[in-house]
Formats: sequence, C-alpha cells, structure tokens
Amino acid sequence: MTGSFEKVLDLAERRGFFWQSAKDLYADSPAGFWVYGPLGTRMKNKIIELWRRAVLKEGALEIETPVMLPIKVFEASGHLEHFFDRLVECKRCHSRFRVDKLIEESTNTKENLEGMSDSQLAELLKNVKCPKCGSINWTDVKHFNLMFTFPVGADATAPNAALRPETTQGSVIEFKRAYMISRGRLPFILAQVGKVFRNEIAPRRALIRMREFQQLELHVFFDPEDVNSYREKLEGLYDYKLRFHTPKDRITGGITEMTVKEALESGYTVNPLITYWLVFYQRFFNEILGFPLERLRYRELLEGEKAHYALVHWDLEAYTEDLGWTELVNNAYRTDYDLSGHQRVSGVKLEVDSDGKKVLPHLYEPSVGVDRVVYHVLAYSYREDEERVWLSIPRKIAPIEVAVFPLLKKDDMVRKAKEVARNLMEEGFYVFYDDSGSIGRRYRRMDEVGTPACVTIDHETLVNDTVTLRDRDTMKQIRISLRDLPVKLRRFLDGENLESLEK
Amino acid sequence: MTGSFEKVLDLAERRGFFWQSAKDLYADSPAGFWVYGPLGTRMKNKIIELWRRAVLKEGALEIETPVMLPIKVFEASGHLEHFFDRLVECKRCHSRFRVDKLIEESTNTKENLEGMSDSQLAELLKNVKCPKCGSINWTDVKHFNLMFTFPVGADATAPNAALRPETTQGSVIEFKRAYMISRGRLPFILAQVGKVFRNEIAPRRALIRMREFQQLELHVFFDPEDVNSYREKLEGLYDYKLRFHTPKDRITGGITEMTVKEALESGYTVNPLITYWLVFYQRFFNEILGFPLERLRYRELLEGEKAHYALVHWDLEAYTEDLGWTELVNNAYRTDYDLSGHQRVSGVKLEVDSDGKKVLPHLYEPSVGVDRVVYHVLAYSYREDEERVWLSIPRKIAPIEVAVFPLLKKDDMVRKAKEVARNLMEEGFYVFYDDSGSIGRRYRRMDEVGTPACVTIDHETLVNDTVTLRDRDTMKQIRISLRDLPVKLRRFLDGENLESLEK
Ligand SMILES: [Zn+2]
Ligand SMILES: [Zn+2]
Repeated sequence: MTGSFEKVLDLAERRGFFWQSAKDLYADSPAGFWVYGPLGTRMKNKIIELWRRAVLKEGALEIETPVMLPIKVFEASGHLEHFFDRLVECKRCHSRFRVDKLIEESTNTKENLEGMSDSQLAELLKNVKCPKCGSINWTDVKHFNLMFTFPVGADATAPNAALRPETTQGSVIEFKRAYMISRGRLPFILAQVGKVFRNEIAPRRALIRMREFQQLELHVFFDPEDVNSYREKLEGLYDYKLRFHTPKDRITGGITEMTVKEALESGYTVNPLITYWLVFYQRFFNEILGFPLERLRYRELLEGEKAHYALVHWDLEAYTEDLGWTELVNNAYRTDYDLSGHQRVSGVKLEVDSDGKKVLPHLYEPSVGVDRVVYHVLAYSYREDEERVWLSIPRKIAPIEVAVFPLLKKDDMVRKAKEVARNLMEEGFYVFYDDSGSIGRRYRRMDEVGTPACVTIDHETLVNDTVTLRDRDTMKQIRISLRDLPVKLRRFLDGENLESLEK
Repeated sequence: MTGSFEKVLDLAERRGFFWQSAKDLYADSPAGFWVYGPLGTRMKNKIIELWRRAVLKEGALEIETPVMLPIKVFEASGHLEHFFDRLVECKRCHSRFRVDKLIEESTNTKENLEGMSDSQLAELLKNVKCPKCGSINWTDVKHFNLMFTFPVGADATAPNAALRPETTQGSVIEFKRAYMISRGRLPFILAQVGKVFRNEIAPRRALIRMREFQQLELHVFFDPEDVNSYREKLEGLYDYKLRFHTPKDRITGGITEMTVKEALESGYTVNPLITYWLVFYQRFFNEILGFPLERLRYRELLEGEKAHYALVHWDLEAYTEDLGWTELVNNAYRTDYDLSGHQRVSGVKLEVDSDGKKVLPHLYEPSVGVDRVVYHVLAYSYREDEERVWLSIPRKIAPIEVAVFPLLKKDDMVRKAKEVARNLMEEGFYVFYDDSGSIGRRYRRMDEVGTPACVTIDHETLVNDTVTLRDRDTMKQIRISLRDLPVKLRRFLDGENLESLEK
C-alpha cells in the first residue's frame, strides 16, 4: 500500500517538497506550474545525479541545447502538424474541454479514444452534456497545438520560435556536429537534462500533468544493421525478466514476464540495443530508486496511441493505488524519422561515416519525466502507524542525510552538537541541526521528511565522545565514537545496517 | 594576456564547448541561443556544483521555481513598466535599432546614455545616419519590453504569463511559504539555478549577450536593523581588500582598493551583510575559479544605470583584452521593493516574525551569469607557444579529468589501458580513452581541451604495473604504481604538484 495522493500532497506542501506556483499570492494563476521547495529540490537533484552517473558509464555524452528553438525545427519534426490535443467548445456557454477527457468522464468508456478520428469522437459527443451548463451543443472537434510559439527579435511580426515540448529536437539538429567533434562512432549516445513546455488543456494531479516539466532524455543514435556491441552488453542478463503489458494483457490487466533471451529470440523487443535499454531502465527504477518490481511494467502502445514519430513505443509505467498506472519513461523507437525530416527541410545531409559506409542513424529514445519520479518516490516511501508518519526514502536520495540534536538545550550540549553538525557538513554531508522541542518531536519531524540518520549528543558524549546514531526505519539506536562517525555514516547511507556498523 | 575572442570561440566550436544553436541546419535561426557541447556542459555543471557547495555552507536553501510565471507577477515587480530597451526605427528602410548601441557606434560618445531621457536621445539621433540606408529620418524613441509573454490555456485570448527575465521573482513570491516551512530566521537565504529569457534587440558576442541564459542567484532576505550576525562572519577578514570602480574612478579608469574595515567604517558598502557577500564573490572568482584579482572589480552603478529595483548596485566585472570589462555578477540591494510591490498588488501580507516583531525583509541579491563565467574561464585559461595550444583550466573544473593512452596500439597495451580507464571511471573520475594517432598528437588534443592529467601505459607497465602521469601545464611526467593511481590522481586534481606526489 502506497501513500494516498492526498496524504503525499499534503506532506509535500507542508514540509516543502513541492507546492503550486504563485498561488499563495495570485489565486487566479494558470495551473500546471509547481515550485520545488528546499527538500524537493535536493531530492530531485540527487535523482538527476544518480541518473547522470548511470548513463555516463554507458558512454552517454551530456549536452545542453536551448529551450527555445526556431519554429522551422518543429515543422521538420512534425510537431506543428501532429502535436495537438483535441478540443471542443460548448456553443451555449463557450467552455472548452479536452475531448477524450470529456467523453471518458461522462461515459466511463473503456474504448481507445486516442485511436479514433475526429468524426468518430463527434459522434460520441452527441450523448455528452456540457459539464458547465448541461446543454448538448458542441462545435466541431478542433486541434489545439500544445506548443508555445512567439516572435523573437524586434523585427519579428509573426512567431518564429517555440518552446520545446521535448529535448529531443535539440539533440537531433546538433547530432552531426556533436558526432564529429567527439570523433564519434555508432551507437552514439547524447544525454539531455532540461525543461520542456506543453500548453496542456487540463493540467492536473500536481507533478503528474504539468505545463512546465523536466526530462532526463537519452538519444541513442545507431546503425540498425549493426547493433552487435549491445549483444555483448547483454551477456549475463539473458535470464533477467522484463515485465510487459502487451495488447493481449489489456483484457485481463495482467503482465507478461519475458526473459531477455525470450525477448531477443521472439523479436518482440526489435533488437539487442533496444532490449538493453529496456533492461537498463527497469533496473534503474527497481535497483537504484527502490521501486517495487511488481509495480513496474512496460506498456506497449498501439497504433493511434503512439507518438507520431514512433515505430515501436513502450511506456514504462509505475502503479499506485490512487493514480493507477502512470507513465514515467517514454521509450520510443523513432527510426530515422527525425533525422530524415530535418534533412529534407534543411537540405543538409545528416548521414555520418560508420565503418566505411554512409549511415543515416536510427534513434531510440528513453525519456524520463523526473517530476513524476519525484512524486512516486514519495508515494512509495510513505509509511504510517499509530505512532508516527515516516518516509522510507532510499537513503542515497534523502534530502537531509543526517540530523544532529543536543539531547537537552544546555550550553555544553548545544555547543558540542553544533560542532558535530559543522564537522559533518565540512565532510560533505547534508546536515540539519535542531534543538527546539522535545527529542521525540525532533525525531518525528525528521522521520516525516525521510532523514535516514539522527545523531544525538547527550551527557555521555561530553564524557567519552560517543554519540547515538538512530535509524529512521527501525528507530533502533547504536552508540558510536565521534571519531568513527563520518566513515560509519557514509557506510550507513551506502546501505549497511546498524548491526553491521556496530561490529 | 588572455586568449582573443576569436581564438577562444574557434576552439570552443571546434572542440565542443559551445556553438550557436540550430545554425548548422537553419541559417536564418534567431540569434542569441547557444548549445553547450559535451565538454562545455561538463565544465558548466562543475562550476554550478562548486557554487552550490559554497552557498550551502553559507546556509542557503536551494529552491526551483518555474520559468513561466503569471503576468501579474511582473506587474507587481515593475518589469512590465520598467524592463525595456529603447528602440528606434528608420522611417525610410524600416530597420530597427537599439538606440544606445546605435548612438555609441556612430558617435564614439563616452556619455552615460543609459541615464538620458527619451527626448535627450532623440536630440542626439539628429546627427546619426541609418547604418542600413544612410538617411536620417527616425521615428520617436520607443520602449521595447524584453519579456516574452503569451496566453496559457485553451481559454486564454490575451497573454496571461511570461518567461521570467530573472529567477528573483520566483523566490520573492514563494519567500513567505519557504520561510515558514523551513522554520526560518532572518537572514534567510534562498538559492536558485535556472534559465531566464530576454528578448534582446541585439544579442551578440556568443555567451556574453544571449536571449536564453542561466543564472545562479542568491536571494538574501534580512532585517535591515539586525545584520550583526554578519559582523561575526567578517571576523578575520577585516584586512581583505575589496576592489571597487567608483564613479570617481571612471575618469582615470582606475580601481579603489578598500579593506573590509574601511568599507564598513565609511559606510560605502551599506552594512556588514552586503559587505560579506561582496567579499564572498570576489573570493569565489579569485580563489575557487582562479580569476586573477587584478582582472576583477566591483563597478558602482549610477542613477539611470541601476536596475529599477535597486537602491545600491554593483556589477562584479572581469577584464579581458578583447571584451574589456564585462559584468559577471549583478549585486543589487533591492530593499523591500519587491516584497512590498507584491504585497500591494496581491493584497497578501508578506511580513514575517523575527525576534518578536513583524518585519518586511529587505532583499540583497547577487546574481551570477554562469554562461559569461564559462566564457571567461576559457579566455583566462587559453595559452599558446610555438609548440602547442593549451587550456590551463583550474583542475577541479576541467571537463575531462584524466586521459588514458596505450603508448602503442598493441593488443596487450590496449587491453591494459582500457582496463585502467574503466577502473578510473568506476572510481568516479571523468576519463577519456584514446589510442588513435601518435602519442604526441594525443597529448596535444588533451592539452587543447584542458585535461589536467594524462596516464600512459607502456612496455614497463606490462612488466611492473607502473604508469606515467603527465601534467598538462608543465608537460613533466612522473612514474607511479597503478595501485596508487586513484589516490594520487585525486590529490593531483585537488592541487598537489607532481614533485609532491613523487615523495
Ligand atoms: Zn456549456
Ligand atoms: Zn534606413
């Protein structure tokens, strides 16, 4: 059982993980924009650093392309034409609605609305009343482009630039230069961390559907005829089980477990390179971020559900009781769709040399929505019993790593505790010092924000330089010497338990 | 002597520190947008991490507010009214120009144009020919607002949001909540790292004047009647010399050196808190990023030059031969201008409790333009002699920390070198492996991107597990055992020289 949406949101807002932007002062602010507070910013940054380290080891090169791009880029990428939501307006009260959401909410249909044509949807709308005024009098279904566009420069009279809805296009248009200056070879992997923007008609559910959000993207350029280097990387992983939600599984709501070996032999995962990255992300979430395996699955998307650029497309989804299955990573095999689009529109050849032949590389792209990851980390960590609420956040990504308390607010204890806190900070730990309220309340406050370790300075400390170290999850304590504290604390944050530290 | 602008830009584009966005494919893309390549991204991220570590020790809490904010925020902040450039159009050919730049370039005036009224500028324009068509026939001077605004949401018909031109307003409107959830006390410091956007009329000089750029901002909220905690922080720094360029110095182009003691006693730096942060940033650039002290100065801005929100305002500037003095950090004492503006427009009380009284805090804000910092790091690091070009980048922020080479492309050496490279990567170093071309050319390639250390595997390595370690700056080499390599390399990157490592 995970924390309910309401409880997680309440805790996040109360303790400063995240809250809605500008609302405290300007109640009519547009929705879909969120602030990360001190704890949320720290946790998100730590997740990003873990991801950076992991993809660096895979040979990815991080670049940073602008958020604002010439509009021609999105002409070539197909976003001007294809990147829209369908919208309908009530002719009586002029309220506007996203068509799929409107139909879903008033009919409880299980049909695949994304795969339907505009006229099929118009047909269904004949039975849907306006939620605002109750009449049934709809305009035609319109296409509402989700990109923000505007004129840049003093001379511009029409929009000549747009805010990117994905970081991908930046990597695609800079791919050839990045490849050449790096003396690259295929497969060639670019990584990007950055903000993206979508003018959602109906932003909702806090960090789940935002208008401004952050992606961690990999852009894996490869020669589809030469992916054998990834066969080697899969050695030792042939028995690893990938978890798929195939079209067949939709009827039962089930999962198809498939070993890497089976996936490769059946051809279901296309090739060893794509297979490897599917394994990479399932393991990243399970083994590094601690998401339970039974709450993860790759949902295969159907025609009409897939993005306009994708030949094959899986959403890595995570399950919570309140939100159901939510997409965390968009995994798209984009083929040479993007590079050939830009080649056509720009007139610039984008092929590269690879082992003596010219290749227009294919693109495989796993794209992580890190805001949704932050929400799910909190939901999965949420614990409560009669006594307390605590976040069992994986120790490595906890925003505060260690709290330091004087047992009592006496001069000598306070002085010593401040000294210990300062030393730990100098050693590079994220430290929180607190001397207000009872020791029990101080522990609770730290439990509630997921601080893995609390160090308390007491009478005995002043005598023999030992302190207590308390484990957030078990509430057990051990006594260790101050001299050993930095090293043992590091080992504790790396995963050791108290018993092993006591030896 | 620093590297010339052309040489630095050429190296940056050729080796992948940074280059102009989208230009390879779409030549008519709007100017002022730049891509960070693999090396530039790494170096910038390292600079940001050093800054984060430094401000964390000062008690700053990092938050992240959206790039896109309700337009009302900028009504309250004064940006809708005051944040503009002055623009004029040629009535004959309809070209548009930034007035100050137009006058400066055609008259070589040394006058303070920023302090002049629109009609004073119109007077000067009577002697200025249009650079495009040669006529003198100007429109009135117009105010061109530098913010990007647009409608958000399917119902919006007029702009209701804007891209922020500074991260400040996010901190200001979220200040009270951040203060309360953190159980804050004044002085209370928020930090933000993020993109900002300005519709510059004349973007130019690569990373120096961009339309999309990145700031590292501190927002120091304080009670102007209680800044004594900063007096303690200044202990031990009273003899430290701040370097100012006062209005008096403008005549001679000189510098006024002022000890902290003198600055405090004369009242020139207003109060101990502001004084401390002026010291902090001069030291950050000089001691942590290695900028020569004689190339740094705080330029005091005059009425008309200061931002609309600033009571006192210094630009921390850095000098290069080609660009002259360039602003790197905007240091503004904003008083309660921002909080009282938002209090007025929103109707929400923004005072906080501090030592038993209600205070509307004052704001002091040092804002680093990190893109300009990146450029200056390269310019100051650029070295050349008859033999080679190298970047003497401070070891801690070098994008590649260590290169690993097999001396010859023989199987056993290649195998060993790859193993060494992999091990160093596992230890957390940024490693580059290279086995193509002569060893001399490989050293040159690494010198040119500022890699501090090169490790070479040779015949002797295969016999006794020792390697050579080469210093980029001196080109000297020592021989060390593979077992000691990670530790000694870490010490080298932390600043030790080869002689000391040999002991
Ligand atoms: Zn209606
Ligand atoms: Zn003209």
